[in-house]
Amino acid sequence: MLMYDIITKKKLGKELTKEEINFFINGYVNKSIPDYQVSSLLMSIWFNKLNMNETILLTEAMINSGDTVDISDIQGIKVDKHSTGGVGDKTSLVLLPILASNGLKISKMSGRGLGHTGGTLDKLESIEGFQINLSEKKIKEIINKNGFVICGQTSNLVPADKKLYSLRDVTATVDNIQLIASSIMSKKIASGADYILLDVKVGNGAFMKNLQDAVVLSKTMVAIGDAFNKKVRAVITNMYEPLGRAVGNSLEVIEAVETLKGNGPNDFTHLCLFLAANIFHMTGVVCNMDEGLKKAENSINSGKALRYFETFINLQHGNAKIIKDYCLFDKCKYITKINSIKSGNIQNIDAEKIGKAALLAGAGREKKEDNIQHSTGVVLYKKTNEEVSKDDCIAEIHTNKKENIDSITKIILSAFEIDTNININKKLIYGIVDDNGFKEYK
Amino acid sequence: MLMYDIITKKKLGKELTKEEINFFINGYVNKSIPDYQVSSLLMSIWFNKLNMNETILLTEAMINSGDTVDISDIQGIKVDKHSTGGVGDKTSLVLLPILASNGLKISKMSGRGLGHTGGTLDKLESIEGFQINLSEKKIKEIINKNGFVICGQTSNLVPADKKLYSLRDVTATVDNIQLIASSIMSKKIASGADYILLDVKVGNGAFMKNLQDAVVLSKTMVAIGDAFNKKVRAVITNMYEPLGRAVGNSLEVIEAVETLKGNGPNDFTHLCLFLAANIFHMTGVVCNMDEGLKKAENSINSGKALRYFETFINLQHGNAKIIKDYCLFDKCKYITKINSIKSGNIQNIDAEKIGKAALLAGAGREKKEDNIQHSTGVVLYKKTNEEVSKDDCIAEIHTNKKENIDSITKIILSAFEIDTNININKKLIYGIVDDNGFKEYK
Repeated sequence: MLMYDIITKKKLGKELTKEEINFFINGYVNKSIPDYQVSSLLMSIWFNKLNMNETILLTEAMINSGDTVDISDIQGIKVDKHSTGGVGDKTSLVLLPILASNGLKISKMSGRGLGHTGGTLDKLESIEGFQINLSEKKIKEIINKNGFVICGQTSNLVPADKKLYSLRDVTATVDNIQLIASSIMSKKIASGADYILLDVKVGNGAFMKNLQDAVVLSKTMVAIGDAFNKKVRAVITNMYEPLGRAVGNSLEVIEAVETLKGNGPNDFTHLCLFLAANIFHMTGVVCNMDEGLKKAENSINSGKALRYFETFINLQHGNAKIIKDYCLFDKCKYITKINSIKSGNIQNIDAEKIGKAALLAGAGREKKEDNIQHSTGVVLYKKTNEEVSKDDCIAEIHTNKKENIDSITKIILSAFEIDTNININKKLIYGIVDDNGFKEYK
Repeated sequence: MLMYDIITKKKLGKELTKEEINFFINGYVNKSIPDYQVSSLLMSIWFNKLNMNETILLTEAMINSGDTVDISDIQGIKVDKHSTGGVGDKTSLVLLPILASNGLKISKMSGRGLGHTGGTLDKLESIEGFQINLSEKKIKEIINKNGFVICGQTSNLVPADKKLYSLRDVTATVDNIQLIASSIMSKKIASGADYILLDVKVGNGAFMKNLQDAVVLSKTMVAIGDAFNKKVRAVITNMYEPLGRAVGNSLEVIEAVETLKGNGPNDFTHLCLFLAANIFHMTGVVCNMDEGLKKAENSINSGKALRYFETFINLQHGNAKIIKDYCLFDKCKYITKINSIKSGNIQNIDAEKIGKAALLAGAGREKKEDNIQHSTGVVLYKKTNEEVSKDDCIAEIHTNKKENIDSITKIILSAFEIDTNININKKLIYGIVDDNGFKEYK
């Protein structure tokens, strides 16, 4: 079999066989197939797409490229959750304690941030002492004690995806729905949970720029799950404006803690409750979404979820005192308020621009080697559909880079769309995709 | 400027600017842009094509990537000729002596064969002592003495094309008309001639599989020539069956010498005369094609062309006695006749299959590193439209590889399409493309 013939076949729009897909993935991982042939195939896939059968075969080949995690010896309902990534998305930090405090088991492997979206691991590392590298034994020990763990991916989990993603990232082949779906699902399936909830973000701050693409991606991932006997549900949510008010690592941890204390921003709190309710519902813990929402609310109102979060930090060697004393986080040298230059109603706050502002402030990485300053970022004082008067404070920059403050300010001001329209029809949740297809959320 | 953005732009079907094309070519040659990004762009170009403006800019960037040859100090009309490659194509060996014996000057840089088509340099190297590496000074000296030279490409002529072609060859991006056109024309323009005749082959033994593509390729190359003030004409010719009867290096040299002696196969002889007439016509040496054909015929009938060929071999240090004594070429260990397994009229002789048979016999290279055995190949005893009876000899294999004779025989037998139809409408010349567009040849 020749990689050349596989490229030619896909280039001409023909369906690849299981043998061809395995040959390509195995050859790439064992280095017998060079990057330049793989990037050529990836671009052919970008143009001609993969059909559902090929997408499932690709996912399977990727899973088989490395080790898989066996958590069958953990008792209880094992769930996993994945967000396709967005600005200010600290959902896992609130959702997982809610689930664990209701008896579910979650072994979540997270990633780091690149570009304008943040990674959960970076957020957690803003807590002094927090450990993200755990042995399989330790992971199971923590889950058995406290119900959930958030850690880095083990080095040999889906190595094909690591290589492919790095290559896609520099060859303009990230934005293909089948490649995104197989990348996400190969890791989730290899991680061993039986139930997977996907938070598919749609908007200019996300990979999926429109609802239609988000629905196709969701359906693809649900179908892949079916093929591997995993129960998968996708919730399609808003990423036109940042989620919550805080963007930046320790700033987001503080917002998550406040949310667990019942003081979170409306949109972020509601999304966490809604995702939790979906998981309670899909796992059969509750019979309908209303019950699920009540169960989730109760975890917060009772303080149970917060206690699980505290124990989680302790078990992963972090300083859990941060829950009571936010001063234990590093402080930035410069905290600068930004005032509105006009009056009106906020139509939208461009998520991508706010993400880039936070990146410039020091909260993210432009390249993989970059260091993050955990205390930096942006706090929004106003959100979409709120009234603002000229000179009202609309946001706050936290940074150590004095030289960047002017350009960050400009980006933030340009991110706020202020006009006279009121009652903007802003949806937080667009709908749900499961085995029954797409159901719009009213 | 980022290569990533250039890939994205072409992927989305947008037109690349001069700056972007220069950035890509220069970056690739100076190694700041890696193969995997270039192959990604090439596949985007394969899908979205280049427009005429981009194709000219790419050709320009490739020419500027290395040295160009200045032959302005050579007196006379300077012409060049290029064939897109085919099986049994030894045209240059006959055409150039005809042109030179009529006062034209030709500095022709040729290539080596890869796959099922042969290279002119390989053919010439079957002559004992023949030198293909010549200094610029030596090239000019020989041209001033004898009118023409055939040599290897100088090492820094269009280095971008060398790199790009090697990459296209392994990433299934050879078959794009704009990339083929810019590859050919960059080398022809950098070689310095004022008039360029292109022999564009069409058929299953050629890059262009149908007349329509051949016309588009021809028009593209003529337009590129216009942009660089070169007079270009393309002749579109048949490559469904091999040209002439001999396929393989010394076998083809012998056929070329026989043609110069007036004993060549009809199709090959006619093509050489027709190409020569076109060059006489486009350079204004004659006023019409009939005059051109007569002039070309006269060069052969008078023996003048043969004398120029003899001097050419001497000047490039080859043993010119081969012209009188073909026994001076190496002989193969095995010369095996193949007899027809049925009677009828030959409908076609699959050029690609005969090329592959010659390759298996030892006449070509599957990989660049392979060695050629110059005396090996295939001789056809019958051609399209000829009658054949069962057990008539239809071809002869020349090889040193006894173990390959059976498989070569099978390939050759399968290449001959024999049926009852007579007077197959086989065209040797399909038409001509110049500034006035495509003119079909009746």
